[in-house]
Amino acid sequence: RLTPIDASGVEIVGGFWARRQRLNREKTIPHGFGQLQRRGPMDNLRLAAGERGRYQAEADSGGSTFPFLDSDVYKWLEAAGWELARGADAILAAAADEAIGVVAAAQRPDGYLNSFVQVVGGGVPYQDLAWGHEFYCVAHLIQAAVAWRRGLGDDRLLTIAGRAVAHIDAEFGARGRPGIDGHPGIEMALVELARVTGEERHLALAERMLGLRGRGLIGPGRFGPEYWQDHEPVREAATVAGHAVRQLYLDCGAVDAAVELGDEELLTAVRRRWNDLARTRTYLTGGTGSRHRDEAFGDPYELPPDRAYTETCAAIASVMLAWRLLLATGEPEYADAIERAMYNGVLSGLSLTGEEFFYINPLQRRTHRAAEQAGHGRRAPWYPCACCPPNLMRLLSSWHHYLATGDESGVQIHQYADADVTAGGIRLAIRTEYPWQGRVTVRVVQTPDRPWTLALRVPAWSRASTGPVVRHSRQWRAGDSVVLDLEPGIRVTAPDPRADAIRGCVAIERGPLVYCLETVDAPAGTELEDLAWDGGRPPGEVPRPDIEPGVVGIDVPVTHSATPLTAGAIPYFAWANRQVEAMRVWIPT
Amino acid sequence: RLTPIDASGVEIVGGFWARRQRLNREKTIPHGFGQLQRRGPMDNLRLAAGERGRYQAEADSGGSTFPFLDSDVYKWLEAAGWELARGADAILAAAADEAIGVVAAAQRPDGYLNSFVQVVGGGVPYQDLAWGHEFYCVAHLIQAAVAWRRGLGDDRLLTIAGRAVAHIDAEFGARGRPGIDGHPGIEMALVELARVTGEERHLALAERMLGLRGRGLIGPGRFGPEYWQDHEPVREAATVAGHAVRQLYLDCGAVDAAVELGDEELLTAVRRRWNDLARTRTYLTGGTGSRHRDEAFGDPYELPPDRAYTETCAAIASVMLAWRLLLATGEPEYADAIERAMYNGVLSGLSLTGEEFFYINPLQRRTHRAAEQAGHGRRAPWYPCACCPPNLMRLLSSWHHYLATGDESGVQIHQYADADVTAGGIRLAIRTEYPWQGRVTVRVVQTPDRPWTLALRVPAWSRASTGPVVRHSRQWRAGDSVVLDLEPGIRVTAPDPRADAIRGCVAIERGPLVYCLETVDAPAGTELEDLAWDGGRPPGEVPRPDIEPGVVGIDVPVTHSATPLTAGAIPYFAWANRQVEAMRVWIPT
Repeated sequence: RLTPIDASGVEIVGGFWARRQRLNREKTIPHGFGQLQRRGPMDNLRLAAGERGRYQAEADSGGSTFPFLDSDVYKWLEAAGWELARGADAILAAAADEAIGVVAAAQRPDGYLNSFVQVVGGGVPYQDLAWGHEFYCVAHLIQAAVAWRRGLGDDRLLTIAGRAVAHIDAEFGARGRPGIDGHPGIEMALVELARVTGEERHLALAERMLGLRGRGLIGPGRFGPEYWQDHEPVREAATVAGHAVRQLYLDCGAVDAAVELGDEELLTAVRRRWNDLARTRTYLTGGTGSRHRDEAFGDPYELPPDRAYTETCAAIASVMLAWRLLLATGEPEYADAIERAMYNGVLSGLSLTGEEFFYINPLQRRTHRAAEQAGHGRRAPWYPCACCPPNLMRLLSSWHHYLATGDESGVQIHQYADADVTAGGIRLAIRTEYPWQGRVTVRVVQTPDRPWTLALRVPAWSRASTGPVVRHSRQWRAGDSVVLDLEPGIRVTAPDPRADAIRGCVAIERGPLVYCLETVDAPAGTELEDLAWDGGRPPGEVPRPDIEPGVVGIDVPVTHSATPLTAGAIPYFAWANRQVEAMRVWIPT
Repeated sequence: RLTPIDASGVEIVGGFWARRQRLNREKTIPHGFGQLQRRGPMDNLRLAAGERGRYQAEADSGGSTFPFLDSDVYKWLEAAGWELARGADAILAAAADEAIGVVAAAQRPDGYLNSFVQVVGGGVPYQDLAWGHEFYCVAHLIQAAVAWRRGLGDDRLLTIAGRAVAHIDAEFGARGRPGIDGHPGIEMALVELARVTGEERHLALAERMLGLRGRGLIGPGRFGPEYWQDHEPVREAATVAGHAVRQLYLDCGAVDAAVELGDEELLTAVRRRWNDLARTRTYLTGGTGSRHRDEAFGDPYELPPDRAYTETCAAIASVMLAWRLLLATGEPEYADAIERAMYNGVLSGLSLTGEEFFYINPLQRRTHRAAEQAGHGRRAPWYPCACCPPNLMRLLSSWHHYLATGDESGVQIHQYADADVTAGGIRLAIRTEYPWQGRVTVRVVQTPDRPWTLALRVPAWSRASTGPVVRHSRQWRAGDSVVLDLEPGIRVTAPDPRADAIRGCVAIERGPLVYCLETVDAPAGTELEDLAWDGGRPPGEVPRPDIEPGVVGIDVPVTHSATPLTAGAIPYFAWANRQVEAMRVWIPT
């Protein structure tokens, strides 16, 4: 088992990820608070606290009402907590205080807290566990509370969450009726709550809820029992199935519980599903979940680039799960998966301005398209179902947690960024131009007076001459440094022969980045659909400061009706930030 | 303009289609009546007539209620009407009488008729035109009434339909409020009603409703305004868009109105959309509508074989529209489209036993699949939303209508079957082993004493040496005969280069039939996903009486890990009738 480093033990000080954390802090999180104020979530909680007004959570103009928007406030609060832990900000602190006050006021005297049930649902809790998202909302409340405790030592949210959990525990605990939420999430939150409070009953409730799945408690519903992870017991299901985010959140909870309980069988079940996911249902971008209808995994190898659903939240959930599996096993393949998802499928969910979001992340968009609803094709400032934007916020505000771990042997670096790492008397300064350049320098700033091991992950794309981890074990002295030279050369990637939808194509990758063509970088007067990969000429690197400082673009050799031309490729995460027309990752050969 | 032949003017007397009409009459239609009795639709109408009980139309276990199941009774009655016109059957007649009696009893004294609104919807009509399907249900009532009038001269349903239409006309007619149904259908029904009754006001109401679309009357809704054809005016929309069946039903009504009104602009608009449909959104099977989420057309060339939605009703609707365009223009491409859809995308909706149905008709099914709900992968005896089964019934019971037309010049044969055709003093006996063999013999049994032209369509797949129509003009004598030798050889079809999802594949066709591989016909121990087309060896014909008498199968040369093997291909329409595992139309090269 690897051990996370304290929230304050890693600081990203420059480069690619510092830019993104700054954007998140300065643009995305403030934008998010404004949206929560204007779009309903904050006011809905105020209604639960007794104010008067209309509940705002319209699913669509058909008139149905989303019951889960409280969770967006909690996710935003989690992000705000991590940000305030990274550094004080009076305006952000005031906004967070306001939100915490609203949440506290909304909670009923008996501890129950869910604005939908309290305001429009008749006030009787737990009447619709399948669709109601009541545990799910409390799960995000817990996660926010954990962030505020861990990052700031502030227990205001922890008190609220503890009372909300006690209300659930009284009805669904060991002596209560069996109940599971149609949307998993509370399982991992309860384990985290047990960790920060030391109270075993939270772990016991998580274990109980994990054990109740797959026994028909919810039933088939509209999309089948796999939609809400009630199709097979958690320790039996061999493959991922159903709604992607629900599957991955559930497995996060299963790993958390397995680690706390020493339950190797449960851990093995999750790893088996992860292997299935990684091998048969994961896009090149690290995205997962191909089907639109039920936001679900498709068949093995059903990975259409055009109709890729690949919800931003599913990519985030895969990062969360891979992180837990990395901690539980130490195996670098999980860090590889985190890297692939973060640089591609996760970041594509956020505009370069930080204030617009994709819910869906396809790998192809055609020049000529079917009639589209407003907002399709461009990132939107918010969504009626706004799970993704605050999920991005909380992930980016805590991204430094994912870079390194410690254990008795020393420190393990999993992700590369300009960062200072402090763990167990060891202090490291990591400097790199990653992902644009492959050199990583790790300087020992402070060291204990005993030998220890510095372990550096070698990404899968750079393992020509090494194993997946390079280890340096010695008695270190301050000022020592180690250089890791990765090889982020251009790669021309062929698809798996079973991936039907991308047969006869190649994709371009460089380092951890997947590249794509966009109309605006295509030869004048051509449509992307008429360009084919020209295997007779090599692709070449080209600086693309027009996208963002430091960006390395790739000039792609193509033919258009047998005429050799060149099309510019940019990192996939940066698509749809200029003129939005067509885009494609997979290029016909 | 071509003119349909009277309902009694064409009789299919043998061969492929006689088998299917017999199956429809003897198995499918009786099975359908049983389902209507057991699953709610008949009883719901009885509740509307005052009986007591629970309304049965569960959309899913989530508890929502379908408002459109009356239409299944009407579609079944339409089929029963055509069947009784083809030949008496006391049991069928008694069942139809029972259904007509139930419908008559359900109608309110004011003429309004919709069991959902009357029983569970509060009794106030026209409160939810977007989702309510009230006009849509009346449309199917009208179509049934037209069948009973045309086929049997029985006006019981016509009286009921006339009163239901009068109720709509009073509220939504020229002096009423503007209103259109979220599901088109009534437009074509009203034109037909005008034709059989001679009452111009029905045509005027159809014209009014056609003119009101695309002006925001319904609004965007959950899937955008194109979902219910409210995105653009009918004479302006350049491409097909939204829900496939709704688009095609609407365009059927537009052609019907255009023909009656002599509105060439309106006809041109539909033909423009048809061209877009045929060129960019039609599967090899003639199926259309690729998207599951909203049963909608995808982007141009977005034609995934695995996630092809291709609802049986959409293929049926394309036959209905192509037939109207054929009559309006005389152009044989529309008859080609009817042939392709009927032999492939329509027939695949029905099991060879006649008692099981596909709602969705994919062109690929993998060996290893995502968790599936009950019934997926196999045809089901019925569906909660059972639009397709009775749609198949009414199409098959009237299929002989589609074979031939007449005009002043003579008779035109569009589809080939063993059939006797009588029109305007001309009597023809058509004999053929079509689709298995290409020879068609047309014998003149009776002829008027003047020259006339026999026009025979040459299918697009057999036009090497002829144009699309062969015309024989002469003074015929009884006993004359003409032979048309079509060339139903095996064709290896390459996909359109823009069809991304099937790049690098070929399909096998023979005559009007698309072929597919199924696991049960693959070499022992292989999975379809591991077979590739072997271009070095020719495919060969092989009798497949195990599928059905007369069936010509195709032995397909394939490789498996470089080993040359042979896989058996059968007509696509016959898939999933044996052991149901994997299937694919498009074979990787």
